[in-house]
Amino acid sequence: MKVARRAHVPPFAVMEILAAANARRAAGAHVLNLCAGEPSTGASDVVRQRAIDLLTAGDLGYTESLGAPGLRAAIAQHYRDWYGVDVEPSRIAVTTGSSGGFLLAFLAAFDVGDRVALAVPGYPAYANILAALGCEVVEIPCGPDTRYQATVAQLEALDAPVEGLVVASPANPTGTMIDPAELAALAEWCGDRGVRLVSDEIYHGITYGAAEVPTAARYLGSGAIVVNSFSKYWAMTGWRLGWLVLPDDLVAPVDALAGNVALCPPALAQHAGVAAFSEAGYAAARANVERYAAAREHLLSRLPELGWDRIAPADGAFYLYADVSSSGLDSVTWCARLLDEADVALTPGTDFDPVDGHRWVRLSFASSVDVVREAVDRIVAWQARL
Amino acid sequence: MKVARRAHVPPFAVMEILAAANARRAAGAHVLNLCAGEPSTGASDVVRQRAIDLLTAGDLGYTESLGAPGLRAAIAQHYRDWYGVDVEPSRIAVTTGSSGGFLLAFLAAFDVGDRVALAVPGYPAYANILAALGCEVVEIPCGPDTRYQATVAQLEALDAPVEGLVVASPANPTGTMIDPAELAALAEWCGDRGVRLVSDEIYHGITYGAAEVPTAARYLGSGAIVVNSFSKYWAMTGWRLGWLVLPDDLVAPVDALAGNVALCPPALAQHAGVAAFSEAGYAAARANVERYAAAREHLLSRLPELGWDRIAPADGAFYLYADVSSSGLDSVTWCARLLDEADVALTPGTDFDPVDGHRWVRLSFASSVDVVREAVDRIVAWQARL
Repeated sequence: MKVARRAHVPPFAVMEILAAANARRAAGAHVLNLCAGEPSTGASDVVRQRAIDLLTAGDLGYTESLGAPGLRAAIAQHYRDWYGVDVEPSRIAVTTGSSGGFLLAFLAAFDVGDRVALAVPGYPAYANILAALGCEVVEIPCGPDTRYQATVAQLEALDAPVEGLVVASPANPTGTMIDPAELAALAEWCGDRGVRLVSDEIYHGITYGAAEVPTAARYLGSGAIVVNSFSKYWAMTGWRLGWLVLPDDLVAPVDALAGNVALCPPALAQHAGVAAFSEAGYAAARANVERYAAAREHLLSRLPELGWDRIAPADGAFYLYADVSSSGLDSVTWCARLLDEADVALTPGTDFDPVDGHRWVRLSFASSVDVVREAVDRIVAWQARL
Repeated sequence: MKVARRAHVPPFAVMEILAAANARRAAGAHVLNLCAGEPSTGASDVVRQRAIDLLTAGDLGYTESLGAPGLRAAIAQHYRDWYGVDVEPSRIAVTTGSSGGFLLAFLAAFDVGDRVALAVPGYPAYANILAALGCEVVEIPCGPDTRYQATVAQLEALDAPVEGLVVASPANPTGTMIDPAELAALAEWCGDRGVRLVSDEIYHGITYGAAEVPTAARYLGSGAIVVNSFSKYWAMTGWRLGWLVLPDDLVAPVDALAGNVALCPPALAQHAGVAAFSEAGYAAARANVERYAAAREHLLSRLPELGWDRIAPADGAFYLYADVSSSGLDSVTWCARLLDEADVALTPGTDFDPVDGHRWVRLSFASSVDVVREAVDRIVAWQARL
């Protein structure tokens, strides 16, 4: 029987690494997993305790499609506190993770056949969701000269108009950021041309010394959409909770779509998620970021030993994206052998960049300094044996 | 700026009823809500206790895209226990509610432009999701002669081929069921013609005296897909947990799609959901069904008083779908006035049937006999005043 053409999504190379890592672990090996885009801790105590209280109190039925009012209000307040931006709670759509947010944003903004631009390397699900929804993905190859981010100049140089642009700052896999002036310029360029800007801000809060982390929530008037999540800063990956900040014209469409496509986000996660915005919730998140910062510092201090001289500037998120092509191995082989011979799991760049990804690997330092130190020790020793 | 054409999803009439009901309740009225498709109780104690234990134990990270292995195994065992059907756990895809299941099933099976048939009246999200994904919805008007279910004869009579068929048994809003022989005939007809059968079985377990409730999991060999949920039988609506049973050719595509579109279903719901299949979990669900059965009996016993002589046979689920056109009012007005004048909230049939729905209303008896008795008292008195 027919399988849909759009269901032919390329599998992620990291899944093979993960399967091999699990097999080695099951066989008794001490594998260090630095391939997951996931904090090694879970939700804060205050969020978990709130969830326990809610489970004790009683049932947890459907919420409104756009989310529980209390959580929408808490998220709106977060924009005032963090960015000094006034966002009405009615603009907030709570979603089932940022995955659910991208799905709703893309459905609301783009029709079948619409062209949507995005930077490569980048998070592969953008392109895969867009393609599944019948959109045409326009890849903009980005390198160190633009900090791996798409620019107005590159958009100007496209050979045909686009209906949308997806940006991410800090980005996955590179960790690079868009500076405030460039985000403003991108939002203006998009707004002037009727191009829908979708800004992935799920790594906001996880930055290392940036003076200002700009949000596209400032540019709702230009039609921009913000996507965010509780998975990274608040370490609530398995809870599947995220949100959109929407321009006026998309609130009703996203509401109607969400009621059909998702019904509502997980209720317990929503009600407990309010506690993420408490003093204790923020404090737990900050403590995680301090841990990532220490792991990052250690990693950067050992780059000379690693011999990785071509890296993306890890301004934020918890990734180092490094060129390992001087080894003479392509990154899929490099990662498979590193796992096989040194029990360290990294992600091949091919998951993020179909063209140049064979030269690059992504290392996640969302764990502890100890794990990163041990991993670097093993990589250095393994590279010496290569 | 452009809003996608596919985002123009018609709003549900019930949302206006709900908003008006909430406003009346806020103003102090004692409103009886019989419009929600939601059990009035929540998850069983055993599931909630399991969730509390998991929250106490630690973090809850991402699971595999197709779901936690323990839950997939428990669901497979459920098919052996309930239906005597052997289903490998690898065929089970855990999803974010049945909503997430429909999305993945439709993406995996149908391309943009594909024609998919379904019975009307029916659950409106089928058509709305399909349309958002660029598929063409082929409505098959169904009446009492086929128990509001599409038949092979109706499929034969279509003027152009279809790529898919969605069936639901027990159905929403009618509660009618497909008998085993007819389901077998539909599966065979579909299998022979390369038509993908999608069988919504989310109300399985909530039936009233049926000798056998057939599952399309028997027809995976014909390419059929089963959609199910923890929301109805196990009363876990807000947990957002469901599953698919997949034919061989769709396992890998759904896995790849799920990793991009959803990442994974909510982790806590998955791990706690295993307890739904325990003796205590089934016992709690059976007690709920006994409550619905008592409410249904009471409702049916008072049909002469209500004067509703044209109803769909409520074989299962927890709905009564009744023709109220003899009142001289269309159902939207009928429901609005019933709420306004008697504080009882029902759902207009227009949400389920754009053609004949103006004659029908849906009453949900997923609450207690007491609530249903009081509601019927009020409706009888209100109809007398009309």
